[in-house]
Amino acid sequence: MFYIDFQPVGRRGVFSKNQSLLDCARELSVDLVSVCGGVGSCNRCKVQVVSGQVTPPTPDEESALSQNELAQGYRLACRAYPRSDVSLHVPPESLTAPQRTQVEGLEVDVVPEPAVRGLTAILSAPTLDSPISDESNLWASLGLPVGTIDFSLQQTLSQKLRDLNWQVSVALRGAEIIALDAPEIKWLGLAVDIGTTKIAGYLLDLESGKTLASKGMMNPQISYGEDVVTRIAAASKSAENAAKLQYLLTEALGQLAAELCAEVNASPMQIVEAVVVGNTAIHHLFLRLPVSQLGLSPYVPAMQSAIAVKARDLDLKIAPGAYVHLLPNIAGYVGADHVAMLLAVRIAQAEKTMLAIDIGTNTEICLNHRGRMTSVSCASGPAFEGAHIKFGMRAAPGAIEHVRLSDGKLEIQTIGGEAPVGICGSGLLDVVAQLRLNNVLDKNGRMGGHPLVRGQSGAAEFVLAEREGQEPVILLQKDVRELQLAKAAIRLGIQALVQAEGIQESDIEQVIIAGAFGTFINVESAVIIGMLPPLPLERFKQVGNAAGTGARLALISQSQRAEAEKIAKQDGYIELATMPNFNRKFAEATYL
Amino acid sequence: MFYIDFQPVGRRGVFSKNQSLLDCARELSVDLVSVCGGVGSCNRCKVQVVSGQVTPPTPDEESALSQNELAQGYRLACRAYPRSDVSLHVPPESLTAPQRTQVEGLEVDVVPEPAVRGLTAILSAPTLDSPISDESNLWASLGLPVGTIDFSLQQTLSQKLRDLNWQVSVALRGAEIIALDAPEIKWLGLAVDIGTTKIAGYLLDLESGKTLASKGMMNPQISYGEDVVTRIAAASKSAENAAKLQYLLTEALGQLAAELCAEVNASPMQIVEAVVVGNTAIHHLFLRLPVSQLGLSPYVPAMQSAIAVKARDLDLKIAPGAYVHLLPNIAGYVGADHVAMLLAVRIAQAEKTMLAIDIGTNTEICLNHRGRMTSVSCASGPAFEGAHIKFGMRAAPGAIEHVRLSDGKLEIQTIGGEAPVGICGSGLLDVVAQLRLNNVLDKNGRMGGHPLVRGQSGAAEFVLAEREGQEPVILLQKDVRELQLAKAAIRLGIQALVQAEGIQESDIEQVIIAGAFGTFINVESAVIIGMLPPLPLERFKQVGNAAGTGARLALISQSQRAEAEKIAKQDGYIELATMPNFNRKFAEATYL
Repeated sequence: MFYIDFQPVGRRGVFSKNQSLLDCARELSVDLVSVCGGVGSCNRCKVQVVSGQVTPPTPDEESALSQNELAQGYRLACRAYPRSDVSLHVPPESLTAPQRTQVEGLEVDVVPEPAVRGLTAILSAPTLDSPISDESNLWASLGLPVGTIDFSLQQTLSQKLRDLNWQVSVALRGAEIIALDAPEIKWLGLAVDIGTTKIAGYLLDLESGKTLASKGMMNPQISYGEDVVTRIAAASKSAENAAKLQYLLTEALGQLAAELCAEVNASPMQIVEAVVVGNTAIHHLFLRLPVSQLGLSPYVPAMQSAIAVKARDLDLKIAPGAYVHLLPNIAGYVGADHVAMLLAVRIAQAEKTMLAIDIGTNTEICLNHRGRMTSVSCASGPAFEGAHIKFGMRAAPGAIEHVRLSDGKLEIQTIGGEAPVGICGSGLLDVVAQLRLNNVLDKNGRMGGHPLVRGQSGAAEFVLAEREGQEPVILLQKDVRELQLAKAAIRLGIQALVQAEGIQESDIEQVIIAGAFGTFINVESAVIIGMLPPLPLERFKQVGNAAGTGARLALISQSQRAEAEKIAKQDGYIELATMPNFNRKFAEATYL
Repeated sequence: MFYIDFQPVGRRGVFSKNQSLLDCARELSVDLVSVCGGVGSCNRCKVQVVSGQVTPPTPDEESALSQNELAQGYRLACRAYPRSDVSLHVPPESLTAPQRTQVEGLEVDVVPEPAVRGLTAILSAPTLDSPISDESNLWASLGLPVGTIDFSLQQTLSQKLRDLNWQVSVALRGAEIIALDAPEIKWLGLAVDIGTTKIAGYLLDLESGKTLASKGMMNPQISYGEDVVTRIAAASKSAENAAKLQYLLTEALGQLAAELCAEVNASPMQIVEAVVVGNTAIHHLFLRLPVSQLGLSPYVPAMQSAIAVKARDLDLKIAPGAYVHLLPNIAGYVGADHVAMLLAVRIAQAEKTMLAIDIGTNTEICLNHRGRMTSVSCASGPAFEGAHIKFGMRAAPGAIEHVRLSDGKLEIQTIGGEAPVGICGSGLLDVVAQLRLNNVLDKNGRMGGHPLVRGQSGAAEFVLAEREGQEPVILLQKDVRELQLAKAAIRLGIQALVQAEGIQESDIEQVIIAGAFGTFINVESAVIIGMLPPLPLERFKQVGNAAGTGARLALISQSQRAEAEKIAKQDGYIELATMPNFNRKFAEATYL
């Protein structure tokens, strides 16, 4: 057993020689970037061995790391195993940085009719002449016929009634009492949008329907891979991984609930209903449903209907009798978060031909034309999150987010105005759009014809920012190719939808762009590179976290919940891979 | 920490100096008799220290044990604590002997209409053109609208469908699928009557309603006290005790289910519905509901309605999605077992005036007169189980069970024909009746006037059996008093019921005697001593374990289940303690 020390994060622990440095980091919650999930192919989990012995560099590492890096002790954490006590330096770029998370979205504006309502009652203490059971006494005092009492609540009911001196408030869900406390208690609801990368949480007053607090955090599953495919592979590999992936989410949601409640001086035990949305893989991992069939054709979900699960069955630290309601999924890659987004943007009620799109590692798009809704899922890949891009990174401080090339002069803007470290998704769209506009990229994406371009053909690269004593931040010809693949997937999805309806892209009267990434992009750039169709800019609308809004709607309104189920049922699903001439059309869609 | 060795049972383990020898025995599942629950008052947990040191004898022990016993190292296990490694001899009389348990009862004869039914389905494997979720696929194949799938089943559904090559049988309960297996599976049900002392279990084929196997076992909670009051005290004392009392029952039921299934080559995972009945305290301990309020006036149950709990919420080792249905309770001391008994004996349908009685530590009695049912509970005490009787014991080998005194000559019969060890409940009734008939006891229960009587007045005793080299088995004057108290409680209960209806005891046209103890008593003796009213003997009927029969009825028939709820609702409850002139009437009822 060896002592492993991660600095400057300051985490340490004891591990065996069969645990890779990445395994050690995961156990210590050191958030190393690991896009590939630890199989030695993304080369992002670089750490520097400061002292101690590890296994010799593998061929993977010898090709991924420069001679200079190897000489300085840099290693891939997923490939190196300790052979003595080891002290490690973790460079900032290897850490999943604190991110811009987003909770803002459309306002919730419906009449509250939550699944759970509060009722107060004053009971008569039992006597020898009327030795009524505590349970029957409670129902009688509420003036209701005997229903169900949550089993865990029933186990503590007698003590609680006596402690509260027979004066109580109950949380009633249908015919079930799920929680009980003092008469003045305020019953709360929790709405959560679990994204692949980020989690947005909202605390609502169930009675008024008001949002009391909101908060974003990172999805801690990220240490098991940045995209869901990697996490599906990890969960399919072992039951321990699957359990750990679920545990990470439950812990995170418990923490989120506690932090939200702390903001309003409440206890998480006041949360008596939760609505959780996420893509199908996240949905399955959260419920600990099997995911291996999601990773293999025909990519079927274990379940698609809405489901309500007791919080205690998920070990979620809110009222144990509370239900966690998950909105329905539509398909293996069109999940409950898409349904929530469609609910929030009111696409089912749209009278115009409307397109709603949530851009991400996986991009879901829905078209409503004359009341017929159809959705498609496009594997746009993690390029927008910075993966497979030489200097790619997520939207964190130092990321280039906006670029302008005017009269040959380059202007860049970084997040937080800090010295440039890399380029995030919106910056990538901007730079490629600007290079295309200035003919530094041709229609095929070939780079050349500008003083900032170095090298030629496949090896060409564009210098975005020189940096003192460091390699400049550059955009590779290869990076442009990656973006072309990503944007082609999205554009092809849109084309498949309009084609299925027998209309033209120009017939689309409104385009709703939802999601955190979509909020920060320059729509004009997205149109220039051909990711979005060439429509007048006023037809586009960026709405922020619509999935979170949909979750909140479903939390405070049962008719909105029913509406979500209707959307999931009515929405037709097109499998992009079954599109005729897919390959030829995909190639065309890569044109800038 | 000391090493404690129990012989000849052959159990050993390591314990601290703060654990009494009884605590050690309990942890090792050595079933020491402990009527008082370990407070040093019943003097039944005698053990002999063969080697090693324990704490010095307490005043309790010095008065309970003879000088000779103390010299030989005999101690009360509940009073002695180890001070070194200790080797102990457990005399047979200190062990709860294997008992006559009883499962036989009235036959189950209703049309099966169980809560759970089996359905088979053949699913189409999903394809890219029809990527339907496994859950929706299953419902569609069953030809049913989408309902609920038990959450633990949903977590394994995808793998099971593929393992079974898409051909399955499901167990459907209402709109919920609770189990799934191969098409040829037989779905089973479990009915259990948990008595204070004994447990009777039945395995049924849910489709045919047939009883496939039945089995009795001891209630392992007995190591925490032989009556429910002692167990209530133990459970109220600490959460650990309460958890342990629940765990003991769950383990026992799991073992019973496994043994029953083994008899018919089935797996406990085929058990998809269970019905459990017991008195209110047992019901509460099994569900881990609080019991302290049951032990204090006004003795109210935490709950009285019927309840269905998931087997996995109880850690019961049957199909995890199965429900365990508990019949309703009527009051703190009139429980679900009484309801089950009333269901089985068809008292609600009786056209004659009928009394149904289940004699035990607690005796429940119900009178149906002209369609009005009223029940009462009598604290008859554990005398019938042998407690507080000098040579009392439960119905185990060597117990005197029948006695005849004719022309001054005494005849005894023991269980198994073995050498007499003590006297069980039915023997106690017999001997007191015979002594009364022969005027060895007068109306007040005073003993005298027979050569076998030794001593005088309060110190009088009747020699039942001389034994070579051992003290004879005797009946003390004090033992007669104990029986008088027990039988008075029962008779007073009967009187309270007929009084409430404004009738006479002689108006009772039929008396049903249910329960294991009731099966073995001589009804004539019970009438002679005045425990039962002086009615013609043909009005009495001994029916065996009727509570077990009632549990089976509720298992295989939903209308029987509904009928049980109707009985619980219609049955009026009289609290004996509120009877006018209770004390005077009780004193009168003690007359023989």
